Amino acid sequence: MAGRGRRVREVNVALLGLGVVGSGVAAFLLESSGSTSNKMGLPVVLKKVLVRDPNKPRDPAIPGSLITTDPEDVLANSDIDVVVEVMGGEEPATAYMTRALSSGKHVVTANKEVMAKHGPDLMALARGCQVNLLFEASVGGGIPIIGPLMSQLLANDVRSVRSIINGTTNYILTRMAHDNADFQQALEEAQQQGYAEADPTNDVEGIDAMYKLCILASLAFHRRVAPQDVFCQGITMLQPQDFRYADELGYAIKSLAIATQDNGRIQARVYPALLPKDHMLAKVDGVYNAVEINGDLCGQVLFHGRGAGREPTTSAVMGDLLEIVRRIAQNAPPLQALEMDPAPEIQSIDNLESRYYLRLNVADQSGVLGQIARILGEENISLAAVLQKDTNLEAQTAEIVITTHPAREASLQRSLQRVAELTVVGEVSSLLRIEE
Amino acid sequence: MAGRGRRVREVNVALLGLGVVGSGVAAFLLESSGSTSNKMGLPVVLKKVLVRDPNKPRDPAIPGSLITTDPEDVLANSDIDVVVEVMGGEEPATAYMTRALSSGKHVVTANKEVMAKHGPDLMALARGCQVNLLFEASVGGGIPIIGPLMSQLLANDVRSVRSIINGTTNYILTRMAHDNADFQQALEEAQQQGYAEADPTNDVEGIDAMYKLCILASLAFHRRVAPQDVFCQGITMLQPQDFRYADELGYAIKSLAIATQDNGRIQARVYPALLPKDHMLAKVDGVYNAVEINGDLCGQVLFHGRGAGREPTTSAVMGDLLEIVRRIAQNAPPLQALEMDPAPEIQSIDNLESRYYLRLNVADQSGVLGQIARILGEENISLAAVLQKDTNLEAQTAEIVITTHPAREASLQRSLQRVAELTVVGEVSSLLRIEE
Repeated sequence: MAGRGRRVREVNVALLGLGVVGSGVAAFLLESSGSTSNKMGLPVVLKKVLVRDPNKPRDPAIPGSLITTDPEDVLANSDIDVVVEVMGGEEPATAYMTRALSSGKHVVTANKEVMAKHGPDLMALARGCQVNLLFEASVGGGIPIIGPLMSQLLANDVRSVRSIINGTTNYILTRMAHDNADFQQALEEAQQQGYAEADPTNDVEGIDAMYKLCILASLAFHRRVAPQDVFCQGITMLQPQDFRYADELGYAIKSLAIATQDNGRIQARVYPALLPKDHMLAKVDGVYNAVEINGDLCGQVLFHGRGAGREPTTSAVMGDLLEIVRRIAQNAPPLQALEMDPAPEIQSIDNLESRYYLRLNVADQSGVLGQIARILGEENISLAAVLQKDTNLEAQTAEIVITTHPAREASLQRSLQRVAELTVVGEVSSLLRIEE
Repeated sequence: MAGRGRRVREVNVALLGLGVVGSGVAAFLLESSGSTSNKMGLPVVLKKVLVRDPNKPRDPAIPGSLITTDPEDVLANSDIDVVVEVMGGEEPATAYMTRALSSGKHVVTANKEVMAKHGPDLMALARGCQVNLLFEASVGGGIPIIGPLMSQLLANDVRSVRSIINGTTNYILTRMAHDNADFQQALEEAQQQGYAEADPTNDVEGIDAMYKLCILASLAFHRRVAPQDVFCQGITMLQPQDFRYADELGYAIKSLAIATQDNGRIQARVYPALLPKDHMLAKVDGVYNAVEINGDLCGQVLFHGRGAGREPTTSAVMGDLLEIVRRIAQNAPPLQALEMDPAPEIQSIDNLESRYYLRLNVADQSGVLGQIARILGEENISLAAVLQKDTNLEAQTAEIVITTHPAREASLQRSLQRVAELTVVGEVSSLLRIEE
C-alpha cells in the first residue's frame, strides 16, 4: 500500500481492463517500465493486468506473468500502489474501485458512468483513505479539462459549461451537415469507421454525454449534478432538411451538453441545438470534442481536441498516473476536489428560457401561419423568422420552419400541443433549441 | 514564513504592483479577505500592497494601512507567506522575486519577461527553498495552459506548440483582415480601445509573444528555450493587399508563436504567417489568444480564451494562489516543474522547412515570371501558385504574388537576394511563411 509516510522505491501499477485504452496504457508502461525518467520521479512498474479472456491476442503483447482473470490478484495484493480502472461500465468497476480505495490504493479511472453516478461518494472515500482518485480521462479524452476546473479555474464563479463531448454523435452530425446523409447512413458510416459501437444507444441517445456533463458540472459548480438531474434528448430524430434549413438561417446543428448555474440554481441538458455558424463550438467537426467554460473572471475559455481513442485517452490516464507518482515520490498528500453541495437546487427543463427552431408539416393553404402564430402569441411567444419549404403538390402539404424569440420551454410545449391539434397541421416534425 | 511543517491558521499575501492585474487581485482578496470559504481551505488575507504612488486614486479603494512604497515592508516582512508579483518588467521584479523565494515566501507571478529570461533559475531557487513559484498568468491570461503542460499533458512527447499569444497584434491583424485597414489605422484603433500601449513596440515587434513562447516551449519540451533562441519578426510591414491576396488563396494572416521539437532539436519563431482559413487558429479573432499543443499521445489540443485584461489575468493569478493556499493547508510540498535541459540543441531559422508567400513589385512585361521562376528553380524551390495583381499602367509595374512548395529558408533567402537584383524586379515587398 502507498500510505503516506511509507518510503517507496518504485510504484506498482495494476490495470483493470485491457480494451482500447488499457492497451495504450499498458504499451506506455511496458516501454518505460522500471525506468527512472525525469518525468516519473520514481520507476513505475506494471505488475498485474486483469482481463476476461487471457488467451485473446493483444497489442502490445503482455507478458503472461502479468495477466490474471482473478480480481483478487489486484484488489487483495498489497504490492499494488495504483489501480488504473479502464474496464468501463458501472459494475463491477464501482465495487473494484471501492475495494481499491478502501485498502489504501490510489485509483485512476476513465469511467464516466461510475464517476457520474458514484463520483462524489468515491471522492469522499478517497479523501477518508488519504489516497488519490483521479479521472481526467473520463471526459474529453486527451483534452485537459478536469485538472483545469479543479485548479487553474478554481477562483471563478462558473456560470456555464457548454460542450460537445460525444465524438460519435458529432461525427454523425458532421456527416449529415456536410454530405446531406440521413441519420441511418451516417450512423452506419460511423460504425464502419470504428467511431460507433454495434449498439450505439449510449452515444446517439445522449447518455454518454449526460454522464460526462454530470462530471463537468459537478466540478465547475461545486454542486453535485447527477444523471437524473439532466434533461436528455438524442439525435435520432434529426432529418437532412433540418441541416439545410439551419444552414440557410445561419446555424450549425450540434449535440450540446450544457449546464448553467445562477446563484446556486442549476440547469443541465443534453440535446441537439442550433448554434450560430461563427461560434467556436459550431466549428468543432468530426470526432473532435470541445468544452467551453464561462466564468466570472476568465470569461469564455474553450478546450478543443480528440475526445476518445487509444492515444488521447492514454495521455489523460498517464497524466493522472504521473501526478500520483510525483505525489508518492514527494510523500505529498493526495490531490482533492472541493467538497460539493450534495443536493443543490436543480431547475427542470420547463424553466429553460431559449429561442426555438420548429419544423412543421402543414396543409398548403392560406391562413395556416396565422393560426399557428396566434396560438404561439397567446403564450407570449413571438416569431423571429419563418421559412416556407418543400411544397408537396400531390399531398397539398408544405413544410414550415419557424424560429422564435426567447420563450419559456413550458410555454412553448403547451402551445405546441395546441398547434399539433390544428386540423391544418399534420405534425410538428422538429423542435430544436437555439443556443446563442 | 510558510516553511513546510509550520501549522498556519491564515495565509498572508502581499501584492507587488497595483496596475490592471494587481487591482483585480486586490479586489478579489478584499472581497473574500479572512473568509474560510470552501475554495480557500484557509483564510487568505491581503497584508501589504507595494505601489509607486500611494496617492493615486484606486479601484478598488485599498485601505491606507496596506499601502506601502517600501519593498522592505514586503520582502523583509516575515508575516508574509505569499508574494504576488504583478509589477511587470525585468527589474526590480527579478530581484524582488529572488529575495522573496530566498526568504521562504511562495511567489505567484504574471511576469513573462522575468520568466522567459530567468524562469529556470528562479524555479531552481524555489525548488531549493522548498516553496512554490507559480506563473499561470504569464501566458494566455485566463487560459489554463501552464498547469496542463505541467500535469495533464506531461506523458506526451510534445512535437509542437503553435499559438496566438499577443492579443494586441491579433486585434490589429483582425481589423486589417476584416476592414481593409492599414497597419497604422488599426494600431491607432487598438490604442483607442486600450488594447495597445502608447509605445506598442513590445507587442507589434513580437517581443511579448517571444517571451511567452519561451515559457511555453520550455515547459512543453523540458528544455530551456531562451529569448535569444527565438527568431522574431513583427507585423509592421504587412500591407492591406497581403490580406486580400491571402484571402483569395484561402488563407488568413496571423502572428504565430511556434516552437517545434524533433528528437531534442528545437526550433522557435514568432512571425506573421498564412494559415488555411479552416484551421482552428485561423478562427481566433480580436483580442482572443489560443495555444495549440501537438503531442504524440494527445494529438492536437487547442486552448482558446481571453489572453489579457484584469479579470482573465486575475483568474489565473488567483488559481495559482488558491493552489498554494491548499498546499499550505495540507502541509504539502511545493508544486514543481520538471527540470529542464539547460542547453538544448537550437535550430536556426535557416533550417526551417516551410512553404512561402512572396509579393513582388515587378516590371509589367512578359518573361518576368520566367526569370524569377528560373532563379527559384536553381535553388530547388518550386512554385505552387502565382497571382498577377494590380498592374500600374503609368509606372508600367505589376504586383506578383507567388506561393511555393516546401523549401528551406536558407535556400529561399539566397534565391530572393538574386531575385531582388533582377532589373525587372522593383522590390520583394512581402515574405511570409505558410503554416499548414
